[in-house]
Formats: sequence, C-alpha cells, structure tokens
Amino acid sequence: MFIDALQYIRPSRAVFQQMNAGKLSAVHITVGYHEDFMGVVENLKGWNRWFESSGDLISRATNCDEISAANKAGKTAILFGLQNPLAFGSDISRVELLAQLGIQFCQITYNQQSLLGAGCFEPVDSGLTVFGREVVDEMNRVGMVIDLSHAGHKTAMEVIKYSERPVAVTHANPNAWHATPRNLHHDLLQALSETGGMVGFSLYPHHLKSGSECSLEEFADMASNMIQTYGSKTFGIGSDLCQGQPDSVVNWMRNGHWRKKPGPTVKFPKPPTWFKDNSDFLGLAKGLRRSTISDADVDLLVGKNWMSFLEKALVPDER
Amino acid sequence: MFIDALQYIRPSRAVFQQMNAGKLSAVHITVGYHEDFMGVVENLKGWNRWFESSGDLISRATNCDEISAANKAGKTAILFGLQNPLAFGSDISRVELLAQLGIQFCQITYNQQSLLGAGCFEPVDSGLTVFGREVVDEMNRVGMVIDLSHAGHKTAMEVIKYSERPVAVTHANPNAWHATPRNLHHDLLQALSETGGMVGFSLYPHHLKSGSECSLEEFADMASNMIQTYGSKTFGIGSDLCQGQPDSVVNWMRNGHWRKKPGPTVKFPKPPTWFKDNSDFLGLAKGLRRSTISDADVDLLVGKNWMSFLEKALVPDER
Repeated sequence: MFIDALQYIRPSRAVFQQMNAGKLSAVHITVGYHEDFMGVVENLKGWNRWFESSGDLISRATNCDEISAANKAGKTAILFGLQNPLAFGSDISRVELLAQLGIQFCQITYNQQSLLGAGCFEPVDSGLTVFGREVVDEMNRVGMVIDLSHAGHKTAMEVIKYSERPVAVTHANPNAWHATPRNLHHDLLQALSETGGMVGFSLYPHHLKSGSECSLEEFADMASNMIQTYGSKTFGIGSDLCQGQPDSVVNWMRNGHWRKKPGPTVKFPKPPTWFKDNSDFLGLAKGLRRSTISDADVDLLVGKNWMSFLEKALVPDER
Repeated sequence: MFIDALQYIRPSRAVFQQMNAGKLSAVHITVGYHEDFMGVVENLKGWNRWFESSGDLISRATNCDEISAANKAGKTAILFGLQNPLAFGSDISRVELLAQLGIQFCQITYNQQSLLGAGCFEPVDSGLTVFGREVVDEMNRVGMVIDLSHAGHKTAMEVIKYSERPVAVTHANPNAWHATPRNLHHDLLQALSETGGMVGFSLYPHHLKSGSECSLEEFADMASNMIQTYGSKTFGIGSDLCQGQPDSVVNWMRNGHWRKKPGPTVKFPKPPTWFKDNSDFLGLAKGLRRSTISDADVDLLVGKNWMSFLEKALVPDER
C-alpha cells in the first residue's frame, strides 16, 4: 500500500494513469494556497469534473473506507487539503463546511502569519493564536487533519501541545539532514513521535540534502536514520510532487497576491532523476527496500503508517 | 468645526438630524468589524440608500474638499472605515479597491491577531507582519488612514516606526488615566505626537475613568493634561458612540464568528449622562471650554486637528 500525503499535481488523465501505474492507494492533493473560500470552491468544482471524466482511474475519498473501496475497484483515492487556512476567514463555522466539502487536511499557515499562527518564514513567531485554538478544537471535532508543514517552530510546538488529536507534518524532512526553515528540528520530531503524530518525508528538491542531486540512497539513509532515532511508526511519504505545473504556479505559491511589487521570479526546481512523476513510487519503494530499513518498516513508511493515522484522524468526534 | 473620528451608530434619519443639531462637520463611521470583502460591500450598499433617502442631512465624503462641500450645504459629511482588515483577505489589491469604494480608515487589527499584526487582547504580540508591511505601504500610497485602535502595543509602535505617513488612533484614551489594554501607554502617545499622528479621545465608558460615571469635568481634565504633556496638535475626539445599536451588536463586535461556543453575553455600557447622542457634541465642547484648555486649543481638539490631519492623510500619493 502506497500513500502520498502531499501532491500539488496539475490534474490530467496521464497523471491519474501514472498514479495507478505507481500503485498509489491514496494521494492527498492541495486545493488551496492563497485562495479564499470561494476560490477553494472553484478548485473543487474543477475536481468534480475530473472525477466524472476519469472515474475509472481516481475516486474522491473523505475517509479510509472510501480509500479501501477505491482501491478494491482498482482506483487511486484522492483526498483534499489546504496549505493555508485563508478559506476559513475569521469564521469558525467554515471549518465544518469545508470538511463537508471534502477538505480533510489544513495547514495552520503557509510560510507567513495566518490568523491561526506564524509561518516558518515570518520573522516573529506568534505561536498559536486565540482564534487558532478555536480552529484546532474544531478541526479535532470534525476530523480534519492539522498539518504543521510551513508553520513556525514555536507555533508548531504549541499546536502539538494544545491539540487533543495527533497532528501531522505532511511534507518536510529533518533539519539536521538539510537545514532550511521548512525542515524539522529534533524537538518537533520528538514531540510528533511521542504524540502519535506523523511526518511525510518530502521529495521536493529544496527540502533534500544536495537538492535535485540528492540520490535515492541518501534519501533512504536519512529515512533509516530517522526510524532508528524516533521509531518506525512516525514516518510516511509526502512527496510535494508538483508534476506538470508551469513555473507560474510556483510563483503563485510563493507570492500569492500579498505583495504589490512582484517578488523574485522563481522556477520549480528540477526533480531528482528517480522521482519525477507518480509512476516513480515503485522505484522509490524498491530503493528503500535496498537500504538498512527492514521490509516491514518500508511497508509502514510507504503507506501503512499514513493509513493507520488516517483511520483515526478522519473520523469525526461524536461531540 | 466638530469632527468625530469614530462612531458605529445604527443609521437612522433621527441620528442624522442629531448630527446636524450637534453641528458635526464630519463623522467617521465603521462599516466593518468581522465582515469579509463582500460583507463590507453589503454594508456600503445600505449606506448608499441612506445617502439617497437622507441626502438633505448627510453626504458621503472621501476627502476634505468633500467634507467642506457637505458643510457648505448644511450637511454632515460621512467617511467610512473598517475596524478590522479582514476585508483585505491576503490580497494587497483590495486596499486600493476598498479605497475606491470609499473606505478611508482601516485598523491594523481588532483585538486579536490579524494578518497584519496583533491586537491588544492577543496574549502574544507578533508586531507588524511581513504582509502587514506591504499593507502599510499600500495604505500610505492610496491615502487610507492607518488606525491603531485595538492594536497591541508592540504592533502599534512598529507601525508608527515603519509607516511613511503619520498614523492615528481614532478612539482611545491614555492608559495612565484609565488602565485597560485598549488605552495608550506613554511611549505610544509620545511616538504619535512626535510623528504628526493623532489620537481621538474616546467617550466609550470602558475607556473612561469611572466608566459610565465619568464626569465631563474629569474627561476635560484628562484632555487638558494630555495637551500639556504632548502638545495641542495631537488630539481630537473619536467618541466610539454606538447610538441606537441593540446589544446583539456589541456581541457581534466582541465575538464575531470566531468561536464555536458562544462567548460571555455582553451589553453596551450605559453612556455618560452628558454624551448619549450626536446632539451632545455641543455640550461636550462647552464643557471643554470651561476647563483649563484655551479656547483655541478646544477648537483644535473638537475638530480642527482632525481636519488638518485628514487634509494630508486622505490625499493619495502620486506614486
């Protein structure tokens, strides 16, 4: 069972065919960066058309039963999430409404300050705000996964402490392996492993040691090391694959519409040769099996851990 | 000339008649607390109907020429502002769009964390955020007054330092006179007076020493003391009058839609006997003239200072 806990692919029939070829059981897809509520609705509208036109390859899923049903029918399950809580606005009721629309993951923030907390590129880390606590409670209640990717360290630590449910970092790597504000410090990894949280190892070049040149062996060694340090239950894959997206998209991701003067123009980094598209999941798993990680632990890493986590995380509270 | 730099009255012909009776040249009216962009648009829609039906009493103004024109025609000029930057969302372009809709004032935040900075009731003060700097630049450019009422102290100090234009606190009093997170500390008053900023003294009971029981003499003594300490150019009136609003409105102001469980139910405090409605502006001015403040300084305090400030503040940059 393979699960990818974060992709932002440009949807196409070719990509869905690769998901099937890569034997992906489920993929969490980002449907919002800087979009407001109606922007997210527009994105979901587009996805509903894909579920119609490629219903033989993919299936919309909001819980693990639906993932299993999709897989039994030979399809990849698609789950949705937001990298930014902007769609909540300041309205707590929108957490449930977005869950009802199928949003199963939401980040506390994306790089900068949100109404919930600070991002990893915001110079001052506010920690979890007053409204942030309300939203964490409500995400806990409705069964929406709290995603700490792109959050500031202090904010992330406070969310782990405050949240009644385990939380996740869907896509990041250890900072000790590759130092960047996007990667995770020891105490955050420790806190996640101690609370039943999850980390999806990222294959986005900016999160990898040696960037695009990172070898599959180096990646597997990092994963092996993490499993030895924090145990085998905490880790999965969250590739951050942005397959098929033009460079205009990474500029939208970085700059949104929050500055008047355009920010520096950026390009998507070249993906590692061994992880370019969804069909490369098979090769990734093979490479991990060649490492010092046991076969049973590779199974956990490439899918079973995420499935166990989601089996609890996606079930709403009875409150 | 009387100018009131903040009211949140329930619009009615009776209130507009009192504005005329109180000889008010201009009133800054709040048209958004927790509303998003479209919520503000809805509120403005309502006001456009009032300008039609009570066009003999009030007139929409976006600059000082329009204030003067309204006054020549015997009318009170109405300017609009927001107590919360939620209507900007994360989109810098909306600053100009809202200015084009007639929004001439906007607070950095309302009590809690916003995308721009922290509020005075947020336990951790983030200061001015990355996006906050962009918005301050853009508000400076389009000629929208930056209002620090309800901001956290650190955030407020950082905005004063960062902003190219003088900024205002439309409605608050000195903290040394009445201690509450909403009132202003010495270094903030000092910084505003040194940079050409403004403070509108509030008549909202929670901001007054002795609350609803505060006497006009006590209020005038405070104003006199402030003028002696910081000079006569920095102060005006920003009454925070919420005339005619039912208690449901103060609950909306406090709680918005940001919490799941309702917050404590609150009521509007009883106004001071000498400042209940817009016609009481005449008595307020009379009381100030009976104090140790010179007549020339009372003229500045009750209107001329705001007019001088707005004569510069409402003119867009040529950038």
